[in-house]
Amino acid sequence: VGAAKFLAGVVSNIPAEDLTVIGNTGDDALIHGLHVSPDLDIVTYSLAGLVGEMGWGFKSDTTHALTQMKEYGGPAWFTLGDRDLGTHLTRTAWLGQGLTLSMVTDRIRIALGVETRIIPMSDDAVSTKLTTVDGIQRDFQEYFVKFGHTEEIREVKFEGAAQASAAPGVLEAIRRAARIIICPSNPILSIEPILSVPGIRECLAGRRDDVFAVSPIIEGAALKGPADRLLPLRGAAVSAAGVAGLYQDVCRNFVIDSLDRHLAAEVAGLDMNPIVADTIMSTPDLAHKLAATVLETESGMPVS
Amino acid sequence: VGAAKFLAGVVSNIPAEDLTVIGNTGDDALIHGLHVSPDLDIVTYSLAGLVGEMGWGFKSDTTHALTQMKEYGGPAWFTLGDRDLGTHLTRTAWLGQGLTLSMVTDRIRIALGVETRIIPMSDDAVSTKLTTVDGIQRDFQEYFVKFGHTEEIREVKFEGAAQASAAPGVLEAIRRAARIIICPSNPILSIEPILSVPGIRECLAGRRDDVFAVSPIIEGAALKGPADRLLPLRGAAVSAAGVAGLYQDVCRNFVIDSLDRHLAAEVAGLDMNPIVADTIMSTPDLAHKLAATVLETESGMPVS
Repeated sequence: VGAAKFLAGVVSNIPAEDLTVIGNTGDDALIHGLHVSPDLDIVTYSLAGLVGEMGWGFKSDTTHALTQMKEYGGPAWFTLGDRDLGTHLTRTAWLGQGLTLSMVTDRIRIALGVETRIIPMSDDAVSTKLTTVDGIQRDFQEYFVKFGHTEEIREVKFEGAAQASAAPGVLEAIRRAARIIICPSNPILSIEPILSVPGIRECLAGRRDDVFAVSPIIEGAALKGPADRLLPLRGAAVSAAGVAGLYQDVCRNFVIDSLDRHLAAEVAGLDMNPIVADTIMSTPDLAHKLAATVLETESGMPVS
Repeated sequence: VGAAKFLAGVVSNIPAEDLTVIGNTGDDALIHGLHVSPDLDIVTYSLAGLVGEMGWGFKSDTTHALTQMKEYGGPAWFTLGDRDLGTHLTRTAWLGQGLTLSMVTDRIRIALGVETRIIPMSDDAVSTKLTTVDGIQRDFQEYFVKFGHTEEIREVKFEGAAQASAAPGVLEAIRRAARIIICPSNPILSIEPILSVPGIRECLAGRRDDVFAVSPIIEGAALKGPADRLLPLRGAAVSAAGVAGLYQDVCRNFVIDSLDRHLAAEVAGLDMNPIVADTIMSTPDLAHKLAATVLETESGMPVS
């Protein structure tokens, strides 16, 4: 959701077709037979101006299917809007016909009038799996939605990542971009799956000077979601500087919130350029301004 | 659809819980990832008083998911109402959890307030497959819905039938019933799949005197669907008497329409008891009257 808000800010600064989005598919799931790609959908619907009030799904969508599932006492923990189901049904049907996920994703964004290219990190299945401190294995959606990301986690891994390849266009986009931005997303659950696909991390490291990241952690806490609770799993401090450390090899320029300006020196100590900005995107205008800062700051030049 | 109308007529004559329905699953399909059981759903929705105006789906259902599929240019040939999707999603989810199709079917009809027990012919997959005269293999729903059952067919078979078992309760219901009725349905596509499950045909034959069937063919034509065009595949004449011949081993009492009363002697020649009645169920009252005739006529006693 943070990434989608930020991306909307980006395309309010530059032509939408000048942006390419590489999306996480580690939280893709087979929900009651349907292939659901939550991150790709949130980004697509947001850039189409169709995203729901909660930051996901279509705005003004109905939930007649879900209501019927509840009437049966069926497993209705995953919210499926009716119009949203049209996306999942189409994706599942096209994948069943042999199309790749990137072909499906491209068709969907074009049909919704999105001029920004959206590419899944991989056309191969990579599944984020979590293990609770009690040793229970959870699929991402079980952990995140069914159990409301309240369980304490001792391990996060990306099943299938080692055997996966970057989707067509991913490495080319990174190599050719004027600037690469790591959005303010969960470093472990949203960004690391992308970096776990062989070739992507190395490719980004090769563009380190042109890579900018925005911290999703402000004053030691995530605005939303469990990012803060998961950072210790990677040996990182629960702070913007902790996130910076996770990106040190791939990112030269790191945006921290104004409330965290005291961390600038710590970030600089990682051979990273600290950029101080207002990162809480509570309005589209604030997202526009944050994106402008990230798009316009010269690499290596601190802003405060 | 003919069967569902007739069954509504039955439960307008006798307590709903005194009826057990054994349903065809040969036209079950995986539609875009979802397990759809069209025949079971039509019967369930009809007995719940919730069936749509077309004779299938929920009445007053919306189609937001389908509209979205069409916006994508997705394969939207199979009509999926939003509330109806709730049924398919729940069924797919429960089957995925390891429930049998008969357990799922029972839960759904109970949740919809249906007091009549509805049992699929088998919990094992039996798939009706058709081959066109041009040698193209078709799944049932492709043939019936996608191509509007207009293609000329040279072969109909029931894949998996030989290895299937009757679902729990099917044979017991046939053995214990006071009377068994073969509904006015397509003899090749709706009734034969049920008879193809090992044990069912033999069990019915053992109750032959108490078996009644209603011809779906009137004046040499099906009211709806391709039954008339398929009868020659089984060497049957395209007439009510042709259908009677297909049921000769399992059925003693055969209902033909008043318009076909001249066929009574031909039916009697098959060692079957012809019953002449008005079989066109254009109103619920006519379905009630037809069902009353089938429920009340003594075996072996012709009515005209």
